[in-house]
Amino acid sequence: MNSIPFSKNNARIRRNAINGLTGFFTEYETSKAVLIHSVKYAGLLRIIQIIILIYSVAYLLIYQKGYQKQSTAIISSVTLKVKGIGYVRTPENKTIIMDVADYIIPASENNAIFVMTTFIETDQRRSTCAESSQLKQAKCRSNSDCVTELFIADMNGLWTGRCLFTSKPTVIIGAENTTNSRTGLCEYEGWCPPEDDAVSPMFIRGALDFRIFIKNFIEFPVFGVKHKNMVADLKPCVFHPTDDKDCPIFPLDYIVNQAENDSNERDLMLQYGGVIGVKLNWICNLDRNIKMCKPQYSFARLDVPYREKPFSVGFNFRYASTWKHERGQFRTLTKVYGLRFIIATSGKAGKFDFITLSLNIGSLVGIFGLATFVCDIIILNLSKKADMYRMHMIEKIHVRNPYGNQQQASDNSSEQNDEIHSNTNSNIKTELEYGTPGNSIASLEKVVTPRSNSLTISPLS
Amino acid sequence: MNSIPFSKNNARIRRNAINGLTGFFTEYETSKAVLIHSVKYAGLLRIIQIIILIYSVAYLLIYQKGYQKQSTAIISSVTLKVKGIGYVRTPENKTIIMDVADYIIPASENNAIFVMTTFIETDQRRSTCAESSQLKQAKCRSNSDCVTELFIADMNGLWTGRCLFTSKPTVIIGAENTTNSRTGLCEYEGWCPPEDDAVSPMFIRGALDFRIFIKNFIEFPVFGVKHKNMVADLKPCVFHPTDDKDCPIFPLDYIVNQAENDSNERDLMLQYGGVIGVKLNWICNLDRNIKMCKPQYSFARLDVPYREKPFSVGFNFRYASTWKHERGQFRTLTKVYGLRFIIATSGKAGKFDFITLSLNIGSLVGIFGLATFVCDIIILNLSKKADMYRMHMIEKIHVRNPYGNQQQASDNSSEQNDEIHSNTNSNIKTELEYGTPGNSIASLEKVVTPRSNSLTISPLS
Amino acid sequence: MNSIPFSKNNARIRRNAINGLTGFFTEYETSKAVLIHSVKYAGLLRIIQIIILIYSVAYLLIYQKGYQKQSTAIISSVTLKVKGIGYVRTPENKTIIMDVADYIIPASENNAIFVMTTFIETDQRRSTCAESSQLKQAKCRSNSDCVTELFIADMNGLWTGRCLFTSKPTVIIGAENTTNSRTGLCEYEGWCPPEDDAVSPMFIRGALDFRIFIKNFIEFPVFGVKHKNMVADLKPCVFHPTDDKDCPIFPLDYIVNQAENDSNERDLMLQYGGVIGVKLNWICNLDRNIKMCKPQYSFARLDVPYREKPFSVGFNFRYASTWKHERGQFRTLTKVYGLRFIIATSGKAGKFDFITLSLNIGSLVGIFGLATFVCDIIILNLSKKADMYRMHMIEKIHVRNPYGNQQQASDNSSEQNDEIHSNTNSNIKTELEYGTPGNSIASLEKVVTPRSNSLTISPLS
Repeated sequence: MNSIPFSKNNARIRRNAINGLTGFFTEYETSKAVLIHSVKYAGLLRIIQIIILIYSVAYLLIYQKGYQKQSTAIISSVTLKVKGIGYVRTPENKTIIMDVADYIIPASENNAIFVMTTFIETDQRRSTCAESSQLKQAKCRSNSDCVTELFIADMNGLWTGRCLFTSKPTVIIGAENTTNSRTGLCEYEGWCPPEDDAVSPMFIRGALDFRIFIKNFIEFPVFGVKHKNMVADLKPCVFHPTDDKDCPIFPLDYIVNQAENDSNERDLMLQYGGVIGVKLNWICNLDRNIKMCKPQYSFARLDVPYREKPFSVGFNFRYASTWKHERGQFRTLTKVYGLRFIIATSGKAGKFDFITLSLNIGSLVGIFGLATFVCDIIILNLSKKADMYRMHMIEKIHVRNPYGNQQQASDNSSEQNDEIHSNTNSNIKTELEYGTPGNSIASLEKVVTPRSNSLTISPLS
Repeated sequence: MNSIPFSKNNARIRRNAINGLTGFFTEYETSKAVLIHSVKYAGLLRIIQIIILIYSVAYLLIYQKGYQKQSTAIISSVTLKVKGIGYVRTPENKTIIMDVADYIIPASENNAIFVMTTFIETDQRRSTCAESSQLKQAKCRSNSDCVTELFIADMNGLWTGRCLFTSKPTVIIGAENTTNSRTGLCEYEGWCPPEDDAVSPMFIRGALDFRIFIKNFIEFPVFGVKHKNMVADLKPCVFHPTDDKDCPIFPLDYIVNQAENDSNERDLMLQYGGVIGVKLNWICNLDRNIKMCKPQYSFARLDVPYREKPFSVGFNFRYASTWKHERGQFRTLTKVYGLRFIIATSGKAGKFDFITLSLNIGSLVGIFGLATFVCDIIILNLSKKADMYRMHMIEKIHVRNPYGNQQQASDNSSEQNDEIHSNTNSNIKTELEYGTPGNSIASLEKVVTPRSNSLTISPLS
Repeated sequence: MNSIPFSKNNARIRRNAINGLTGFFTEYETSKAVLIHSVKYAGLLRIIQIIILIYSVAYLLIYQKGYQKQSTAIISSVTLKVKGIGYVRTPENKTIIMDVADYIIPASENNAIFVMTTFIETDQRRSTCAESSQLKQAKCRSNSDCVTELFIADMNGLWTGRCLFTSKPTVIIGAENTTNSRTGLCEYEGWCPPEDDAVSPMFIRGALDFRIFIKNFIEFPVFGVKHKNMVADLKPCVFHPTDDKDCPIFPLDYIVNQAENDSNERDLMLQYGGVIGVKLNWICNLDRNIKMCKPQYSFARLDVPYREKPFSVGFNFRYASTWKHERGQFRTLTKVYGLRFIIATSGKAGKFDFITLSLNIGSLVGIFGLATFVCDIIILNLSKKADMYRMHMIEKIHVRNPYGNQQQASDNSSEQNDEIHSNTNSNIKTELEYGTPGNSIASLEKVVTPRSNSLTISPLS
């Protein structure tokens, strides 16, 4: 007769709910604790807990600033200005001054600036002329060598089909094998004359004395904090790694030396170009005054070193000024080599945030609980007195059919005979007999009185 | 007489503190556990715990790399170079070669590059001339139509106030209504002649054979790791999606095909311009060799497709070369259409971090505890034997005034009569009477001996 | 005889392991709870728990979207276009129109655009001429003043060593002290004539009526979501803060007014240049329709206000157009001042993520446990009935050598005599004597029957 009528089930649930609700505010519920006097395991547990506490509080919360919400999102705007005079010594021993408008190409860029250090200038006009002598396919002996439909890479213009010879042909008279033994170059129509890589490039001296003024405006959008790399009342200055670390005006010499140790490589960079990354790293603790937050400047060479002989070396590009005059189109084609500075900004800001702190504390509470869990496993399973501890730390409960036979589950009874000098029973059972008729009998392991207010313990008959 | 003297209170607190401190290291404290033999609920609890364990370890910690600190902060520098020859077939059937210095405008940019594919060139000089015929407000019949103080959008220069007629006027003689029926265009002072949109633009053929070399240098600032998209010993190569995925030299044809499926749209992009986003996505597992980390290239069209007929189509801008000659100012105004490539970098790097691992484990411990919490609620409230379980899992304690009357709180006594075959008492009370005089009497629910070291249980009289 | 043979140890561990494994799935284990009827502490605990619950659920999970994985990583591409006509009134009272190709320098940039508002134009050619009168070191009285090897900052070219006088010298005849009292300027070879800062710059009027069209394409790479700031079917429009907030075409007037309140500063910005940061902030809840996500435009002035008199004011750079003619090199050097707009994008996107939700819930469970922990400390140590509670909430267990003497640890026995009216025993010990020979005696604090199935309590003899 274990069936419970539906109404009685409902009634019981309702009663439990009401009890639960009133009990919610009047009953203080907590876990029952067991205190075992054992210096060995207590010491082990406390040591683990202290280690966790030190790790949590000292390392995680304080050193790693676990109480701060941290963000690496940074918005950055940069303006750059270079000042300085360079000069070029031409093959004719003339000295030509190069000022800012000459060597900064393009005149203005975003987050980058290019300083020309070497260039090859070719004055061209649209007409017809002989191909570049460096183009192998352009060598010809007769016009037929120059007839082509395809586009050849590096061709300077559309080939007209004529083979141009630089000098007059010499005819060998008298011999039957009158061969025209000259080789010429195919003629093309386009920008003439072709660029000549063999021409010695013009080198701008004094480039390392130029100075670059980097103005950086940043914002940490997560915190809504704005800042810039210039102190208030900034005076004209020059950056120095120890004497003036706050000055954002850098000599190119310093930057190139920071980016590249090898002086030979530095010379090659000025000759064939190089790419230098300028990084401004902002580590800001927003719990302090924003004025204490200053960027760390670092310079790194980005292009592949020349000693590794990559197939694409340095940095260069072609740039042309064009104009027209009397139905002719003219341009000055300049192949420029130089130092390209690319500015990048990174940052990390942290500010006290209660949510982050509470979530981290919550996680640390979980780790603390692990310590007890691990020690419990050790004590309950691996220690010598494991069974003893188990007996006291765990109550085993069998809930049986009260009208069933009074079985005594004798777990581990065999164990009882093994160990004489210690309790090895991991289960302790107590059976009580109640003589009062009509009372339900429940085998519980606690001294209990169902339906009576008094404990009646009658001696075993 | 419930007043506790202040000194005694202090003494008690001091004693508790000392006991607490010595006890801290000598007493092992853990929660007392209750083991209920119930395959049903034990199985339920274990299944939930195993599910949580699998989710936590297999999914969260291993698959989602919960042991790694992950960051999406990435610093990127890009240099770009395009190579190739294009040609234009003019209306006069001439073929004009366009080389890199002609079609890359501006010659150098940061994180972007523009390849001109179509252009309208107008040679201008500062003087006076007739307005553009496309400007409706410029149509005039007499000078008075051209007098204006306001600026009209799209006007090419300040109007002089004269109405220019292209041809000589025809006067109709004899009629009284001698109307000048010609319409002319207002004269303006500025760059002359005005740009004529009706002129057929010049189209650069062969643009899709150009190749773009993308060099990308990245850094994950959080981990201080630098990398680039070029393998060591890079040889001249061409990118191929299956054969050569590591080559950073892309044919424009491949890029445009990736960005736009529709061939008609691709043709329109070459004619009226387009914007293509080149994204380099770096997913790097920094616990492995950095060389295994390679970028994923993806190309997406950013401008609105032509079939959607937006009011602002494609991509174009105006660019001028200016020069002066004999007191005249000249310029070649070029309206350029073409493909603008904007390079963007994104990334995510992860590296083993003990703090992240410990915080995640701490959170998972909390979720584990939830499993027990939920099962406890089910067992204590919703199961059939709820009251039975409640009896054993919860000890209810009433602490009363020891000199007060011996009230027996008979909670739930009414419940006792309802259920015959199971214990419905959620409270078990035990009252003991102590005959020994002078002993304080405390109604507790445990067998307890205040002030005596022995348990004296005398049978009820 | 406390030695346990090795085989028996192994057997015990094996037995425990098997029991543990079967018990794992058949025994439901949970913490034993203690319910104390105390409205005061129960109320305190519940209030703390409710506060934590409200904070967790309402604030952390719902308001701060703790169920979402949030990321601030955003990829952004921008194209810009400015339209408008400006005009310059020259000193000769001529009006010169400046169109887009005149005032946007360079013609195309990435994430930035420069609008020229004032300029100083100098037509130069490479030759020799007198230095700038503003260069103090260039003042000379004789050729010897002009001989220098060093480079002087701001020199316009390499000094030839001649001192040029603007007018013919007047010789004072007759006096012995025939001094040449004129001062001239050193001659240099380079771009002539030098730029003259004293020349009044030409101011472009109508710049504030220009309009800038900002097209912004973004992607949240963590979620793979793309978006742009133009609504579908965008029509020609003008941004208005209340009437048309979705239109991405901004009048320069509006932008400058937003960036700078002071009208005097605004005028100075148009005269000497300024840097304005245009920030597009995308806050997107990806659980909703992406169309609901629109950027917030904000404009901020980045350069230092003129009233603070920084040594580097405004924004300017030098830009040159060069050409050659009949063996002469010519250029128009333009020192341009204007408004530099730097576009920056920031964003934060969130999307429901089960992992983030579970980790946060796990942390919150930990915080919940803290509430009980804190209240336990209060109850066990600081309350008046602390000892009473301690007695019931903590079971103290001494596990001793069962063959040892029957010591009664009488902790706190002295305490027993102090307090008459309340139980001050923090330890309750029960000692039972068992008369049955051969039984091991264990002093435990629970009613326990080792090795027997019945509770035999014999009255004390």
